[in-house]
Amino acid sequence: MTFFNHIHKIQYEGPQSTNPLAFKFYNAEEKIGGKTMEEILRFGVAYWHTFTEDLSDPFGTGTAIRPWDNYKGMDLAKARVEAAFEFFEKLNVPFFAFHDVDIAPEGDTLKESNENLDTIVAMIKDYMKDSKTKLLWNTVNNFSHPRFVHGAGSSSNADVFAYAAAKVKKGLEVGKELGAENYVFWGGREGYETLLNTDMKLEMDNLGRLFHMANDYAKEIGFDAQFLIEPKPKEPTSHQYDFDVASGYAFLQHYGLEDVFKFNIEANHATLAGHTFEHELHYARIHNMLGSVDANQGHPLLGWDTDEFPTDLYTTVLAMYEILKNGGLGRGGLNFDAKVRRGSFTPEDLFHAHIAGMDSFAVGLKVAQRLIDDRVLETIIDDRYQSYKEGIGRDIVEGNTDLHKLDAYALGLTEIKNESGKLERIKATINQYLLTTFTGE
Amino acid sequence: MTFFNHIHKIQYEGPQSTNPLAFKFYNAEEKIGGKTMEEILRFGVAYWHTFTEDLSDPFGTGTAIRPWDNYKGMDLAKARVEAAFEFFEKLNVPFFAFHDVDIAPEGDTLKESNENLDTIVAMIKDYMKDSKTKLLWNTVNNFSHPRFVHGAGSSSNADVFAYAAAKVKKGLEVGKELGAENYVFWGGREGYETLLNTDMKLEMDNLGRLFHMANDYAKEIGFDAQFLIEPKPKEPTSHQYDFDVASGYAFLQHYGLEDVFKFNIEANHATLAGHTFEHELHYARIHNMLGSVDANQGHPLLGWDTDEFPTDLYTTVLAMYEILKNGGLGRGGLNFDAKVRRGSFTPEDLFHAHIAGMDSFAVGLKVAQRLIDDRVLETIIDDRYQSYKEGIGRDIVEGNTDLHKLDAYALGLTEIKNESGKLERIKATINQYLLTTFTGE
Amino acid sequence: MTFFNHIHKIQYEGPQSTNPLAFKFYNAEEKIGGKTMEEILRFGVAYWHTFTEDLSDPFGTGTAIRPWDNYKGMDLAKARVEAAFEFFEKLNVPFFAFHDVDIAPEGDTLKESNENLDTIVAMIKDYMKDSKTKLLWNTVNNFSHPRFVHGAGSSSNADVFAYAAAKVKKGLEVGKELGAENYVFWGGREGYETLLNTDMKLEMDNLGRLFHMANDYAKEIGFDAQFLIEPKPKEPTSHQYDFDVASGYAFLQHYGLEDVFKFNIEANHATLAGHTFEHELHYARIHNMLGSVDANQGHPLLGWDTDEFPTDLYTTVLAMYEILKNGGLGRGGLNFDAKVRRGSFTPEDLFHAHIAGMDSFAVGLKVAQRLIDDRVLETIIDDRYQSYKEGIGRDIVEGNTDLHKLDAYALGLTEIKNESGKLERIKATINQYLLTTFTGE
Amino acid sequence: MTFFNHIHKIQYEGPQSTNPLAFKFYNAEEKIGGKTMEEILRFGVAYWHTFTEDLSDPFGTGTAIRPWDNYKGMDLAKARVEAAFEFFEKLNVPFFAFHDVDIAPEGDTLKESNENLDTIVAMIKDYMKDSKTKLLWNTVNNFSHPRFVHGAGSSSNADVFAYAAAKVKKGLEVGKELGAENYVFWGGREGYETLLNTDMKLEMDNLGRLFHMANDYAKEIGFDAQFLIEPKPKEPTSHQYDFDVASGYAFLQHYGLEDVFKFNIEANHATLAGHTFEHELHYARIHNMLGSVDANQGHPLLGWDTDEFPTDLYTTVLAMYEILKNGGLGRGGLNFDAKVRRGSFTPEDLFHAHIAGMDSFAVGLKVAQRLIDDRVLETIIDDRYQSYKEGIGRDIVEGNTDLHKLDAYALGLTEIKNESGKLERIKATINQYLLTTFTGE
Repeated sequence: MTFFNHIHKIQYEGPQSTNPLAFKFYNAEEKIGGKTMEEILRFGVAYWHTFTEDLSDPFGTGTAIRPWDNYKGMDLAKARVEAAFEFFEKLNVPFFAFHDVDIAPEGDTLKESNENLDTIVAMIKDYMKDSKTKLLWNTVNNFSHPRFVHGAGSSSNADVFAYAAAKVKKGLEVGKELGAENYVFWGGREGYETLLNTDMKLEMDNLGRLFHMANDYAKEIGFDAQFLIEPKPKEPTSHQYDFDVASGYAFLQHYGLEDVFKFNIEANHATLAGHTFEHELHYARIHNMLGSVDANQGHPLLGWDTDEFPTDLYTTVLAMYEILKNGGLGRGGLNFDAKVRRGSFTPEDLFHAHIAGMDSFAVGLKVAQRLIDDRVLETIIDDRYQSYKEGIGRDIVEGNTDLHKLDAYALGLTEIKNESGKLERIKATINQYLLTTFTGE
Repeated sequence: MTFFNHIHKIQYEGPQSTNPLAFKFYNAEEKIGGKTMEEILRFGVAYWHTFTEDLSDPFGTGTAIRPWDNYKGMDLAKARVEAAFEFFEKLNVPFFAFHDVDIAPEGDTLKESNENLDTIVAMIKDYMKDSKTKLLWNTVNNFSHPRFVHGAGSSSNADVFAYAAAKVKKGLEVGKELGAENYVFWGGREGYETLLNTDMKLEMDNLGRLFHMANDYAKEIGFDAQFLIEPKPKEPTSHQYDFDVASGYAFLQHYGLEDVFKFNIEANHATLAGHTFEHELHYARIHNMLGSVDANQGHPLLGWDTDEFPTDLYTTVLAMYEILKNGGLGRGGLNFDAKVRRGSFTPEDLFHAHIAGMDSFAVGLKVAQRLIDDRVLETIIDDRYQSYKEGIGRDIVEGNTDLHKLDAYALGLTEIKNESGKLERIKATINQYLLTTFTGE
Repeated sequence: MTFFNHIHKIQYEGPQSTNPLAFKFYNAEEKIGGKTMEEILRFGVAYWHTFTEDLSDPFGTGTAIRPWDNYKGMDLAKARVEAAFEFFEKLNVPFFAFHDVDIAPEGDTLKESNENLDTIVAMIKDYMKDSKTKLLWNTVNNFSHPRFVHGAGSSSNADVFAYAAAKVKKGLEVGKELGAENYVFWGGREGYETLLNTDMKLEMDNLGRLFHMANDYAKEIGFDAQFLIEPKPKEPTSHQYDFDVASGYAFLQHYGLEDVFKFNIEANHATLAGHTFEHELHYARIHNMLGSVDANQGHPLLGWDTDEFPTDLYTTVLAMYEILKNGGLGRGGLNFDAKVRRGSFTPEDLFHAHIAGMDSFAVGLKVAQRLIDDRVLETIIDDRYQSYKEGIGRDIVEGNTDLHKLDAYALGLTEIKNESGKLERIKATINQYLLTTFTGE
Repeated sequence: MTFFNHIHKIQYEGPQSTNPLAFKFYNAEEKIGGKTMEEILRFGVAYWHTFTEDLSDPFGTGTAIRPWDNYKGMDLAKARVEAAFEFFEKLNVPFFAFHDVDIAPEGDTLKESNENLDTIVAMIKDYMKDSKTKLLWNTVNNFSHPRFVHGAGSSSNADVFAYAAAKVKKGLEVGKELGAENYVFWGGREGYETLLNTDMKLEMDNLGRLFHMANDYAKEIGFDAQFLIEPKPKEPTSHQYDFDVASGYAFLQHYGLEDVFKFNIEANHATLAGHTFEHELHYARIHNMLGSVDANQGHPLLGWDTDEFPTDLYTTVLAMYEILKNGGLGRGGLNFDAKVRRGSFTPEDLFHAHIAGMDSFAVGLKVAQRLIDDRVLETIIDDRYQSYKEGIGRDIVEGNTDLHKLDAYALGLTEIKNESGKLERIKATINQYLLTTFTGE
């Protein structure tokens, strides 16, 4: 059976095409600097937002109209697998990602949940044989069930910690079974509602312990995926322990985990934490911690995680700039952790939204590559920091100085001359690159 | 004498020009829909940010390097006038705007301040004879001097109210003398630090009284400028009475001033109030209250008025869309209430920043005009609200119904069918228009 | 049957009582300035948060454990009524409030929904005969069902407008039947996700039409409740038309409704809009528009509506100060539009939370009354604005001046002397009043 | 000479005293748990806000009226020293803190600046002989002068780095000379305006180098002060490298400095970073990194550093709770990095503001001590985490488990029972402690 009857494979038809169901900028086969767009961008579909989400919000029930709405229980789970692989194929994406509960319903017991998972994982594995689409990452949802009300790895209840750990164990096994490239930890409830009843040290220590146990077990079973932490500052908790990349990096160093984990960076989580997306990517990159990306965007005037499909081209350009400077995403990818708006409730909207996101990152890639080819920002930075390439500047970066020498040098300075940072001119240049990379042909 | 020796008149040289001091998208003479860009965009230079600002901030003294830095007192004021008209000519802008204290130093007494103003106003008037650049608006600075510590028209001190009123009187006379198209009220201190010591009703009533007196006096002296209120939610006060356009509109209606004033809408003030710039423009437009624009932008992650030069093309497109739908700005204009960053401290940066802003609005204009020509959003809205063009919908908008009839109609409905809002697809369309309007030629 | 077996009537037992289920500060019978606390505070229980809410959030399913969890459908609705009146009695509250769908499940058709409502309304009416608890206000939920995805009175779909209007009609009838003191309009979806597909003028006009029709119908059926608009800036929409009190006041004036409506002001909505709670109360009060209060609080670092029970005593003191200065709430009340935290999932927490809120407002009342009795803020304001009581100040407030006279006066001023606003000292005074009103006895 | 003629020594006179210039809650000699309030609270006066600040803001010139306004240059610097020690004595504070430029004007050259410093440092040292007031910390202002426009230790200009380093050298010498307990680094410009022209890695590496050099030099000269980093997320930069405590801790670990530095935590910086003040204190405490405190508060609705005097008692209670749990502040203290409001411009306001702050922390101390004495929060936490004291929980915290064992345990669980987090009840308890610690006697 098919779920998206009238949707044909989405292909590149150029910006002026009148076919709304076509890529205008993303061309999987097009080569940029020696690699295809598909190889560089490594797009992934998020199972939860695309096949499980009903578009409810805190003030309303779900609006989504889905071809699989009539199924229930395990039949629904199976229908979603069918729909998913049809969707992957039509959209021509190389990756997908899921939490355990996205693909299979929880049972009344952990054992039953595991059995449900086994059934669906086997089905997915079977579908994957005939599909180009691979598993970018999987994880377990240790935040939605009421048992996780006070956290999972940071729960105040040791039984819940154990339950969460058992789910992680199963998640690692599922990842191995399906050949996941990465395994993600997003600690939706790993934080606190209030400090007044919280033992933060115990909770953070326990999180550290869980991560070590997970790493040990992955090694034990030969699951060599890249481990990723996904920072988020808050929501649903008032304060999450992995507030942002820097906070996560402090945690990893403190618990001796900085060589085990990298970061899965989400745009909307970055802005909720008070950073630009590119800041978080850049910080991770220069610390060699950039692992993968949750590609979405927030609304700059709204204070919650809107998880919008990414269409802001400034952000996609600067994100792709960071990714290209990182030498690509390695085993990571661009996972659309993005949901259609509540008012975009038709199956067609799922395609339009992914096309919008993929096109936006394709634009980002091409503009960023042009910026790099022309050494636009590199030249600015080379000029700006040239004083560190010789004399006292070189002494500083090479560690050949101290406060005595610097003081003597400074006392001898007759004038200090700074150069303009030229931000307005740089922004105009970015605009020119954005506007002149594509034409209406 | 000249202050910008090596800067020649800025002309349009197209996007791929290698001349950094050229417009890439703004061509004053280019016609869009029957009018020139210059006529539509009506750009203005803000005297304060360009000729008076020293780029200090709360944590540092000024960094600006200006060719007129060696002058003092009235000589400085005169040098700035010379520099200003040289700048206007080289940038080829049709308008400028100022506060009284931008152009002439305050004296020890009100009388002396007025005399200083008279001297400089006469000089400006003289320069305007040989210049195409007109006065978009003027105003008086009733917020910087310590006497305004508790407000001006809303001061707790009647002497300060009187002083502020006297300055407004002079401001209206100056506006008339220089043929200002508009007269602006920005109430920087017209709000409160705390409610605990504030009689808000008296303060708002007094503001209403001042506005009526100003209107009476303008009529008396035959100054027919458009009166504008410029909303801002906060900063420097904790809470300003003209929080946003809606709040200002409530005020104007309450005090019987809605036919006397329109709004001068600033992008950065909109976002500080929790609105998009286009929201404020749209709200004013549909209430017939859109007067003029302070063209700048804020930083979405910073909580103060950064007054950056506008380079975000999404914002300029949507702003120009509102302005074109408004039938243009009438007597208003696009005043660059924007300052170069503290790190952009050279005179060249003043040109680059204005070029960046003018080019960005030129792009906005051309893309918005294409959207309108192709009826992109109009078609979406026509389709979306078509149910109001006939049947029960028409009854509703024509006022031919009541709860009885609507109840009977609703009871008879067997199904309600909503259509998708298609936001993701619309955003992709905007991107396509943005990317394909210009080429690298 | 009873649902809260071991909970006895909550009574005042003073601050040092060891009984956790007792009021420590709220004593219904205690008189403050001639009226009992119960008469002044007019507390109401929100049916939705207390009897319907399951404590789910966007990242998790419900955690609430409720004694009526085993019931379904209309039996559940009936069980909730029983539980509600038991709760009201044990808590000894004079009021409650509800949306239609809180008390009765929606049916497959509007007719069936109305029948369900009729059944439960009759049951409630019957319970009210033996209860002191009255209906503070009712409303209809025109935002949760998928049909309201694009709004209700501002829907792009005329059928939805009609359906919403029919629900309002029924809501007014229910209010009349149960003797509601007020009728509330909260437009949860009356706003937009994006301007790009929105006809804001049509939507606002339609909202104005619906409000007029509702007023006409209320008059027709002799339902004399006070009509209230409840502003909220955003969430679930990106932007709601009733952004704040000022915005709602602009709307009401524009559509000639300012004499028909007052405002129901919610603390958390105020802060989401960038205002303090007391600002919104004060603004409404001085415009004679303060109708009722949704008593809750937000989290200052979270960007969504957390609807916490109010425990911040600074806020309750300043809120009660405004309410006392308003001469009380009239037909309005303090409705706890507040939900227990997701981690506070037991029935006992419902009592503790309401006790916390009622005690906090009782403290607010007593401290505010002491501030007023001692004329603390009144004296500050009298002193601060004394210049408007004579001379030029009196001329200003009496309208006996103009810019000529004020200019002449200002030219004659030799010195302007402002007085300190003394905010730090005032805040210390508030702290002293807070800390010394109660003792541990 | 004296600058505060009519102000006498501020003494404790109890809450109902009518003397406005008296402590109502702070009694330096009163013992709490074996130590005096003075010993525990270790209050410090910030030289810059109290003796140098003119109360200008971005929209207005200074309003402060100070008895030393008539002095200029080095005479002004000397007058301020006299005023400062008179102020310290009258307020009876044990500490003060300064930046180099607060106490002595910068000269035309570094050498001249150092000479100016030497003169004033000698004068201060002399005054300190007869004063109980010690130097809590000093630092150098490496952010206000235009030379630091692009940063100091992170400047793009090596000459500026050298100059900044020379100032740090002098700062360390001054600290040693005056017996400073701590030395602080606040990197006001150590961040970026935009990533587009920034080499973040080089800048952070250079900062790390500067910190190492400073530590080496302090050891060399035998200056044994505690080194402190003061995090701030932004302002004046768009993004500062020491965004918050966690970010700073990541930095310190990365550069091998975690044993050299602790943190100086400022309340207003915490909230600007999206954290509560108590979160930052708690995070630092459990990582053994809590060094000192900048005691102030922000305005929850304003997005900039308002540096208000701390009067919010919830914050002072929770801050003192963290400090008491930390075993006190060690060599750190509570430095009032707070300025009077622009409208509080009289010398008296300086006293009132400090009294308000000192009283608020005295209240915080007494309430926190009562909470600890009664083991209020300790009992809650003991109960809540009791499952980690035996069985599987103990295995987890002792590291005696792994995913195999936890999985087996979880599979055997028949039910998981969580307890309510009881937040509403806890908040009510905090209110009761706050309200009943003091009486009006």
